[in-house]
Amino acid sequence: MNGYKAPLADMRFLLDDVFNAHSYWQTMPAFEEAVDLDTALAILEESAKLNEQEVAPLDRNADEQGVGFENGLVTTPDGFKQAYQSFVEGGWVGLCGNPDFGGMGMPKMLGVLTDEIGYGASNALQLYSSLTAGASLCINAHASEALKQRFLPNLYAGTWTGAMDMTEPQAGSDLRGIRTKAELQADGSYQISGSKIFITSGDNDLGENVIHLVLAKVASERGLSKNISLFLVPKINVNDDGSLGAPNGVTVGSIEHKMGLKGSATCVMNYDNAQGYLVGQEGRGLACMFTMMNYERLSIGLQGLGASEMAYQLASNYAKERKQGVAADKSLRSGEFSDSLLVHADVRRMLLNMRAFNEAGRALSMYVGLQLDLANYAQGDVAISASAKVGLLTPLAKAFLTDRGFDNTVHGQQVLGGHGFIREWGAEQLVRDSRIAQIYEGTNGIQALDLLGRKVCANGGRDLTEFVDELTADIAKLEHLDDEFRSQTLEAFARLLTVSNEVIEGAKQEPNLVNGVAVDYLNGFGYCLLAYFWLKMMAAANKQDDAKFATKKHQVGHYFFIKMLPLAHHHLGQVVSGSNSIMALSIDDF
Amino acid sequence: MNGYKAPLADMRFLLDDVFNAHSYWQTMPAFEEAVDLDTALAILEESAKLNEQEVAPLDRNADEQGVGFENGLVTTPDGFKQAYQSFVEGGWVGLCGNPDFGGMGMPKMLGVLTDEIGYGASNALQLYSSLTAGASLCINAHASEALKQRFLPNLYAGTWTGAMDMTEPQAGSDLRGIRTKAELQADGSYQISGSKIFITSGDNDLGENVIHLVLAKVASERGLSKNISLFLVPKINVNDDGSLGAPNGVTVGSIEHKMGLKGSATCVMNYDNAQGYLVGQEGRGLACMFTMMNYERLSIGLQGLGASEMAYQLASNYAKERKQGVAADKSLRSGEFSDSLLVHADVRRMLLNMRAFNEAGRALSMYVGLQLDLANYAQGDVAISASAKVGLLTPLAKAFLTDRGFDNTVHGQQVLGGHGFIREWGAEQLVRDSRIAQIYEGTNGIQALDLLGRKVCANGGRDLTEFVDELTADIAKLEHLDDEFRSQTLEAFARLLTVSNEVIEGAKQEPNLVNGVAVDYLNGFGYCLLAYFWLKMMAAANKQDDAKFATKKHQVGHYFFIKMLPLAHHHLGQVVSGSNSIMALSIDDF
Repeated sequence: MNGYKAPLADMRFLLDDVFNAHSYWQTMPAFEEAVDLDTALAILEESAKLNEQEVAPLDRNADEQGVGFENGLVTTPDGFKQAYQSFVEGGWVGLCGNPDFGGMGMPKMLGVLTDEIGYGASNALQLYSSLTAGASLCINAHASEALKQRFLPNLYAGTWTGAMDMTEPQAGSDLRGIRTKAELQADGSYQISGSKIFITSGDNDLGENVIHLVLAKVASERGLSKNISLFLVPKINVNDDGSLGAPNGVTVGSIEHKMGLKGSATCVMNYDNAQGYLVGQEGRGLACMFTMMNYERLSIGLQGLGASEMAYQLASNYAKERKQGVAADKSLRSGEFSDSLLVHADVRRMLLNMRAFNEAGRALSMYVGLQLDLANYAQGDVAISASAKVGLLTPLAKAFLTDRGFDNTVHGQQVLGGHGFIREWGAEQLVRDSRIAQIYEGTNGIQALDLLGRKVCANGGRDLTEFVDELTADIAKLEHLDDEFRSQTLEAFARLLTVSNEVIEGAKQEPNLVNGVAVDYLNGFGYCLLAYFWLKMMAAANKQDDAKFATKKHQVGHYFFIKMLPLAHHHLGQVVSGSNSIMALSIDDF
Repeated sequence: MNGYKAPLADMRFLLDDVFNAHSYWQTMPAFEEAVDLDTALAILEESAKLNEQEVAPLDRNADEQGVGFENGLVTTPDGFKQAYQSFVEGGWVGLCGNPDFGGMGMPKMLGVLTDEIGYGASNALQLYSSLTAGASLCINAHASEALKQRFLPNLYAGTWTGAMDMTEPQAGSDLRGIRTKAELQADGSYQISGSKIFITSGDNDLGENVIHLVLAKVASERGLSKNISLFLVPKINVNDDGSLGAPNGVTVGSIEHKMGLKGSATCVMNYDNAQGYLVGQEGRGLACMFTMMNYERLSIGLQGLGASEMAYQLASNYAKERKQGVAADKSLRSGEFSDSLLVHADVRRMLLNMRAFNEAGRALSMYVGLQLDLANYAQGDVAISASAKVGLLTPLAKAFLTDRGFDNTVHGQQVLGGHGFIREWGAEQLVRDSRIAQIYEGTNGIQALDLLGRKVCANGGRDLTEFVDELTADIAKLEHLDDEFRSQTLEAFARLLTVSNEVIEGAKQEPNLVNGVAVDYLNGFGYCLLAYFWLKMMAAANKQDDAKFATKKHQVGHYFFIKMLPLAHHHLGQVVSGSNSIMALSIDDF
């Protein structure tokens, strides 16, 4: 397996030339002093160094070795502990955390890039940090000051890791049915009892403690509450002075044997009168969890993107080195017995599909990161507008980046031919590792329903229209652009609005419409957005000094508009054809 | 994992109502006496019984256990030996083999169905029989009478297994570069020396001998011949009386560790002055191998279809049993706490994508099987025309059935949510097992190039036009059809012809055109064909007596036309946009 290289030049181009990140950071007091472009680039370089040199080389073995489970304890694959210790020493886990509790207070727009680098180097190892960061974020937003002081410093430091405990055997996509029980104690804490499945990082040997955020229902004499609450439940109790106390009633029942992501422990968790602490208000657990979910969903999108970038690097390096067949185009022939795979248009097609997606997908992820920053740290209308965009774009980014990310790992595997199926080459591992990203943190079907149902239809398309109007105005202002691509993009967004309005109206009569067309809607929307980011990138590439870089951007961008933007229209066409053909067959006939 | 059930009702419908298979069989002397509809149905029932009861239950363990390799010998997973013995006892390996040497002489149109059943029950186990049948076919077509008499009876019986030894480390898709050497001996045999990789069933413990068909170059004093020849190289020498002699110089160097299909041994084969026998003429090895390839490629298509059918069964059974969420459509609500997954339109969408493909894909595979039968056993123009269709449709069937088959295993896995990622449920195994079918027997990119380059462009579209004309005439004659779907199908085929002609013309100026658009061309063509088979099936469903069956066919068929046929237009549109955007980026910039 070739090594992973963080795409630093592209990241710099996006931060500086495309988004002018510094200009945003200067408007937010939280970042004004803390970060400028040079700091950001230095952070990316350090992240690249750590992940390329220490993390990436562990990833292949982590798949073969997997996690161990003995005497109730999980052990991570060889080298994970040491590499994670480097994360801890570098302060990476708390990169975007609250400085009041030891976080580094960096913008999420930068954090998405370090997340992508981490996932690119190892889907499995990065997940331990990402979940810890996500749990910290939720505690920071909703827990009492006392809980924050007790738990956040060690979580931001990474010496304790975090987990989100939601799913139960009978309650997956539909959390209403959870049965884990919380009983209020005299001291104001709760006793938690029950069982959860599919708990990523439910246990590990990387940190000294595991802090679980557990969804449960408060018990009263009338039985379990209908509403769900959120509890902080440590694996090991923490004394008032912050030192570790006795083990809590939290045990790992077993670990799952999975298709991939074998270096990440997926646990069955049992709580036996475990001591827990309410986070946020009783009965408001799902709302609290969703604070975390917006970040985690974006992070899982980055898992897809990171795997896709690694798949591109692996496949393009293979294609460069592998010689097979003779170029159909005589002008490309090397004169040797065989030419590089890259003379064959079909191989290029697969690689360009991956690359045109990766570059614009990265811009999309940064844009969502920026909106998270603006929503949290800007003021007034800017924050309100950003918050609406976060709502709209988070499910899209999660699903679109992981669906296309997975597809791209499959494309990359195909470029390797027979070697793509052999484990030692690593391409098939990327397929297996990235597959789960389409399922967990809310399946991509659920994301699509969230986008179309709750973020578009529920407000009559208001947030969508405002967002598209803003993009349209921005597109009109972009300079140095091929007007054909500009008008193609405007046309695609105009169609997106038309189709959206048709769904908003149609859904009033057709109860299955939203559910039936949501996935196509999300994909159509996704390709529209990639077109917008390609326009931004092509315009920015023209403005900077490196002509060779600009040419490459334009060549890949042209490929996008000619070969990939038509997918926006295909998917939006599928939306228009409605749900009736989907609902006709009777349930018994499936 | 739920058990596999052979789709016998659908198979019967296709054989009898859709294709009227018996009417074809009566026109061919080879089948006239040997098979009628009742015989065919009895054979399918036996195949279903064997595969459902003996084979399918072994498949999950076969993946976990994999094949063993010790002291140079391969051992297959628990139970494979016994189940394969049942194949041998039932005469299944020689089902379509030449009766002169112990084959059962059944039509390939029936054989595709038993192959699909075998792959549906176990991708891995079926492959051992399929390769043996393929090797037998090649020997029957090209080897000397003496070789046939010596080797075919045991191959058809299945007591010896077969393998195709083509790939070498430096020669995969491009076989010109193979270096395995054949030296003519005084007795007319050859000594074979060299090494091959990725040899499926290169060794196993199912039969008493392995018969390798090895591509090699004949050595002379001027070095290796440029042309490739084909040799029969047994693992154990066979004495003149047919008994087993001394081991030949054929050894397994190692076995590959793969993403999936772990019950099938993929071997590195070494030949050290192994005794081999020329099959066909010297220097004509590739042509001989291609006889086998047409059958094997169709068979690999059936691997994709079989996995897709199993994925549908697994996912639809799960969706029926799993309750989660409440129906958006009040009329579908059960009134219980949660409804079946099948009330959710997005879950149905995934299942219908699978099912609408499986049913028409099965018809496509049978149609290709029929053309193989007509090409081999009919006379005159019928045989010539069938032969052209085999050429055209074989690469299409291989690539389209395996690409869509793989996609469908991914859809099926998604329906299972988190359980889809857990090994014990079996859905993820289907993804891993079917993935290789897109790569081996010629990657699907190579298939597309074969279709568009050699089967369409090379004869100026003549075979294509004749084929489409024939289908168009047939479509005009179909009764009891919704004219809207009829005209949509005609329109799609008309566009296929237009686009084909554009490529035929364009390729004269644009050397990368064929290679750049071949995959989209194949997919566009594939969806056109599915539309044709859906028309045929809908018309036939109307004519038979079972109204409930007819309703189901129409509901799934409607779904196809409304939701899937638009993909034909999307892909054909991609063809029209040409190859320039693919070729612009310089090789160094990938």
